[in-house]
Amino acid sequence: MALAIGVDLGGTNARAAVVDADTGEIVAAHKEPLHDRAPTRVVGVVVHAVREATQAAGLDPGARGVVGVGVAGQCLGRSGVVLNAPNLGWRDVPFGELLRAALGLEVRVANDLTVAAWGEKRFGAAKGIEDVVLVFVGTGVGSGLILGGKPYDGAKGLAGEFGHVKVRPPRRETKVRRCGCGQDGCLEAYTSGVNVAARVREEIAAGAATGVLDLVDGDLTRVSATVVDDAFRAGDAYAIALWEEVGELLGTAMANLITLLNPERVILGGGVLLGSPELASIARRWLDRTVSRSATNGLTIEHAWLGDDAGVIGAAVLE
Amino acid sequence: MALAIGVDLGGTNARAAVVDADTGEIVAAHKEPLHDRAPTRVVGVVVHAVREATQAAGLDPGARGVVGVGVAGQCLGRSGVVLNAPNLGWRDVPFGELLRAALGLEVRVANDLTVAAWGEKRFGAAKGIEDVVLVFVGTGVGSGLILGGKPYDGAKGLAGEFGHVKVRPPRRETKVRRCGCGQDGCLEAYTSGVNVAARVREEIAAGAATGVLDLVDGDLTRVSATVVDDAFRAGDAYAIALWEEVGELLGTAMANLITLLNPERVILGGGVLLGSPELASIARRWLDRTVSRSATNGLTIEHAWLGDDAGVIGAAVLE
Repeated sequence: MALAIGVDLGGTNARAAVVDADTGEIVAAHKEPLHDRAPTRVVGVVVHAVREATQAAGLDPGARGVVGVGVAGQCLGRSGVVLNAPNLGWRDVPFGELLRAALGLEVRVANDLTVAAWGEKRFGAAKGIEDVVLVFVGTGVGSGLILGGKPYDGAKGLAGEFGHVKVRPPRRETKVRRCGCGQDGCLEAYTSGVNVAARVREEIAAGAATGVLDLVDGDLTRVSATVVDDAFRAGDAYAIALWEEVGELLGTAMANLITLLNPERVILGGGVLLGSPELASIARRWLDRTVSRSATNGLTIEHAWLGDDAGVIGAAVLE
Repeated sequence: MALAIGVDLGGTNARAAVVDADTGEIVAAHKEPLHDRAPTRVVGVVVHAVREATQAAGLDPGARGVVGVGVAGQCLGRSGVVLNAPNLGWRDVPFGELLRAALGLEVRVANDLTVAAWGEKRFGAAKGIEDVVLVFVGTGVGSGLILGGKPYDGAKGLAGEFGHVKVRPPRRETKVRRCGCGQDGCLEAYTSGVNVAARVREEIAAGAATGVLDLVDGDLTRVSATVVDDAFRAGDAYAIALWEEVGELLGTAMANLITLLNPERVILGGGVLLGSPELASIARRWLDRTVSRSATNGLTIEHAWLGDDAGVIGAAVLE
């Protein structure tokens, strides 16, 4: 059994796991919260999480090895300069080098969705497939690309910025939603869990009549994509109109991604896509309607298999 | 000097060239029209063009070697099954195998825009660059992708179908233009030379007031993107409105392509983009406005260098 070490570094936690590199199974894992996001503090937390996980797995912590890390941000090459990680508040942090020095092990770094797509390609929903797109619609929106059998990161580690394709022409619509990135009309501004919830709260505050309010017992902080999906199923007109709009944008954007990249498999992940079956089904209908027909030849669309483990598993076997 | 043989196979001509594989220079070339598009007839024409070009270059036609071919169509793998080539009327033609048998040489086949992008990457506007997108807007609209230093063809040879991304939501607009592919709202339906000219003719026939008619001396068959560009420059209101619409669609679609793939260089090619400077400049303005800002870090946009030679040059050095 060849063991490998993977780390999933998000904005609030670092999770390290020892993974069986032949099967993708997690042998031991350790998760630790980030109280302070200063790079040296985060490195300390990651080092500690790696030590805990390796100890739990009975691995010699001094053994030669490689640690793979998936970071929620823009990573330049495998060596791990993090150019931009909004959730960590990092810009141009030589994270890979800092971690290497602290651990005394070789470190490979990549974007978290690239790493998750790689995990699914090695051991999950896209095993053995060369051209894979992981579409993630959760708190944020993004994608991870495996092209020609390898993770594709782009020239500056930004490939797969699916959440920031523009789906609303800036000029044509009366009201175009602003994205967290500062630009207008991004897919994420219309379809991420955070943005859907914010919009519903806004529109309820502005007087929209919807059963969503009853479903959350009048507590607007509980509004989520899942609740909108429940309202849709209950026949709520507001939820139906909203999901038609969001599903059309998601489905058409996915169709364009498929038309451009001609993958063999698309994997759907993230809490919004997997937790809102009605929305997913509308998106799928729009995808089928707008995708270039020849690109569907041999294409299969599957749900992610590895869930939240995809990050540590993919990171452990990063090449 | 290492000589290599490349072929550019379009819908009306086959052009073969002997190329210096070290410099990309064309040593000798021969172009022949296709009178009959039956696969065995086309193979005969290609064989003849290759023989003429090699003879003119003083190459021993019996020498061991490889012939690369760019085909205007969907090519499955390098071995050269042409799944679909509308201009040739081909479906599932084992073109590579037929040509190999007829020539007695190894044959490598790829899509014409992929091959052109490869030519530009090896010897032209993207020399030495690993992540390159060639955007082509001419009679048709498409793109060629070089990702991680290699041509990227997709799972079924369809990657880069830029002309068939949907830029008009099927439901929201009162009138969505139909594309030659049979679907509605494709970028090509709005921006290709053929479709722009057809639309202008339609709208003039329906009574649109425009100076375009004077510029072609009332001869509607002479309407082209270049003429619309001239009318724009002369201040024609119809041309200005049309170019604003077409430029916005082109620029936003290019921005989305860049946001998704994070290339280091984008190459602009094709008669419409290169022959209509006013349109190109509007498209560029929309690109700048809608592209994900971080994706522009280190990005350069250049005109193609190799023009119509990119196909034979790229084919000759296809890997």
